[in-house]
Amino acid sequence: MIDLDRIRADTPAASRLAYLHNAGAALMPTSVVAAMKQHIDLESEIGGYAAADREADRLEAVYGSVARLLNAAPDEIALVENATVAWQMAFYALEFRKGDRILTAEAEYAANYVAFLQVAKRTGAVIDVVPSDASGKLDVHALERMIDERVKLIAITWVPTNGGLVNPAAAIGKIARAQGIPYLLDACQAVGQMAVDVEAIGCDMLSATGRKFLRGPRGTGFLYVRRALLQRLEPPMIDHFAAPWVSRNEYRLRDDARRFETWENNYTARLGLGAAVDYALDIGMGPIEQRCRLLASRLRSGLAAIPGVTIRDLGRAPGAIVSFTVAGHEADAIVSSAAAACITIGASDPSSTRIDAEMRALPPVVRASPHYYNTEAEIDRLIGHLMDLAPR
Amino acid sequence: MIDLDRIRADTPAASRLAYLHNAGAALMPTSVVAAMKQHIDLESEIGGYAAADREADRLEAVYGSVARLLNAAPDEIALVENATVAWQMAFYALEFRKGDRILTAEAEYAANYVAFLQVAKRTGAVIDVVPSDASGKLDVHALERMIDERVKLIAITWVPTNGGLVNPAAAIGKIARAQGIPYLLDACQAVGQMAVDVEAIGCDMLSATGRKFLRGPRGTGFLYVRRALLQRLEPPMIDHFAAPWVSRNEYRLRDDARRFETWENNYTARLGLGAAVDYALDIGMGPIEQRCRLLASRLRSGLAAIPGVTIRDLGRAPGAIVSFTVAGHEADAIVSSAAAACITIGASDPSSTRIDAEMRALPPVVRASPHYYNTEAEIDRLIGHLMDLAPR
Repeated sequence: MIDLDRIRADTPAASRLAYLHNAGAALMPTSVVAAMKQHIDLESEIGGYAAADREADRLEAVYGSVARLLNAAPDEIALVENATVAWQMAFYALEFRKGDRILTAEAEYAANYVAFLQVAKRTGAVIDVVPSDASGKLDVHALERMIDERVKLIAITWVPTNGGLVNPAAAIGKIARAQGIPYLLDACQAVGQMAVDVEAIGCDMLSATGRKFLRGPRGTGFLYVRRALLQRLEPPMIDHFAAPWVSRNEYRLRDDARRFETWENNYTARLGLGAAVDYALDIGMGPIEQRCRLLASRLRSGLAAIPGVTIRDLGRAPGAIVSFTVAGHEADAIVSSAAAACITIGASDPSSTRIDAEMRALPPVVRASPHYYNTEAEIDRLIGHLMDLAPR
Repeated sequence: MIDLDRIRADTPAASRLAYLHNAGAALMPTSVVAAMKQHIDLESEIGGYAAADREADRLEAVYGSVARLLNAAPDEIALVENATVAWQMAFYALEFRKGDRILTAEAEYAANYVAFLQVAKRTGAVIDVVPSDASGKLDVHALERMIDERVKLIAITWVPTNGGLVNPAAAIGKIARAQGIPYLLDACQAVGQMAVDVEAIGCDMLSATGRKFLRGPRGTGFLYVRRALLQRLEPPMIDHFAAPWVSRNEYRLRDDARRFETWENNYTARLGLGAAVDYALDIGMGPIEQRCRLLASRLRSGLAAIPGVTIRDLGRAPGAIVSFTVAGHEADAIVSSAAAACITIGASDPSSTRIDAEMRALPPVVRASPHYYNTEAEIDRLIGHLMDLAPR
């Protein structure tokens, strides 16, 4: 069970703000803030190298925490600057030839899609978008029919940046493993919101961020690479940490996933990430997921009753990202008016999921993303605020 | 003139430690620590996105500060996670074909050299090491003689990680510009220690870190790319910040150096970097450089008089990185014994500058790197400590 009083005491801003922007960057618990400030103090007291040495055990433990979060092993984890770098280090490590196919989904995130386009331009690989089913999620049967020997990668965003969608990550994984096709899962909006189990999903690579539903610091991310694949992947760029310089004309790649890292890191942020993961694990991903769904569902029910509001979400079991528009009001204006009422939400632009947005003729949408630390009353405050905006 | 009292008051740890490890990670001034902690507090009060919005002007000003430090324009600056990423984003953006030549120096840093090796393996490019002159610095005449139409890059570490050397960056730049060859300068150990002027040097790309002589946070770095070259370089990896997704099958690279960045960043660290650069600019790079040289010179003189100590520095005008060995004592043991006496220094392994180390048969060396905030008395404390270790 979630101890909401304790959790909200650990989230001081929750007493002032209805903070429903967890798909942007969540509020950090006090343990994350304390971990970071303590490390900054230690660095200023003894220097940045000595501070990292002194905290070596705690820094090493961050790999273990992330591994537990994903049901992976610590040597399958790389800690990097953000989810994009995590995804890039995996994606750009793959080799493509002319005619090779990359399969992705309609609501794929812009960051990933431009990388597909760059690699397609460089190599002649082609990008094929798997259609969605009637509910809006990736059509697993269509994916299955699209598989041939030219498919060299399945790359999917599990929970797109807007649209509420939760793509069928594990069903996709089943196909990928049966066919022996590498499977890269962008779990940026999934980690911290729902249980993530790389064994159950069957993905080979998974990228994620610290700052969203995990409630970690900005500028943190991580990459999981399955051990069996790991040693066949040469990172797109290396330094002497990823690949020690062992003789004049030779480097040797590390055996573990840290071959995707660089030597220098922001240890302050990394300790904050570790504290955030530990905080989530301590509460338990089951209860977190359940409460996220409960609050999102309450919000969708309330929105459905407001004249002029259109919910823009997809899938039969949408997650904690609630997307909508309000007739006669721009998304940005709604975000601003909510901010003035101490309700923090965001907006999402069509260019962030261009294919889906064009197919659905989406304008910029408002994005409200509750988390387990929110209250039912905060959800109702947003609903009330929007009712006041609606035409009467 | 340097106001040492004020500067040391801004560096609280200086009252407890003789901190001579500025080539590792320097002590941050209080303004850097405060800038970071304030931003962490702001993020925890209003959320990570709102905090970045509120500090947008200050965040934008960091580009201006870095540009002033380098005598560049703000649109020629990318702020990235560390110096390695900065260097990699430039280096891996260059195209090489079989037989193309990369010219570098004997004391090139391991991080860069393994990247040369990776690209040589991928493309068939060759790495040619420019010999050093009798003083130990890159031989500019030899470089000139090595130029032919197959040379596609000159990539040099200005101040190597050990060995005291200051390579003739501007003389190399003169040759590079005359021949129209791209010139990538690794200035990791130079920024914050000495005046850096990309116009005077004539480099096309320059990478650097925040944490060393600049006294900024760990996990910060920046890249300069000359405007004329910038728009011809496609970054090795892109996201939708570097290259907005403008239509279904098209991205458009940003016009400025931020095409080498990703969307998500650690704004706390970035504000710390800005505060560090401003602090250095406020003191002035001229006085800083002068005092660094003075203290390093005092240290070398003291070391020269200690039996059993061998100074391992190169070049006629060595910088603030003082490298030495002590007969009968391992470098690591010296670092530990100094630490026990509240003197912070470091060691540098042969594998970090393998070619130079092999040519000189260098063991691990002790590395003491004073900065302008150190006192003469601190230098003398290290000298005294080493005298006590020396055979009598």
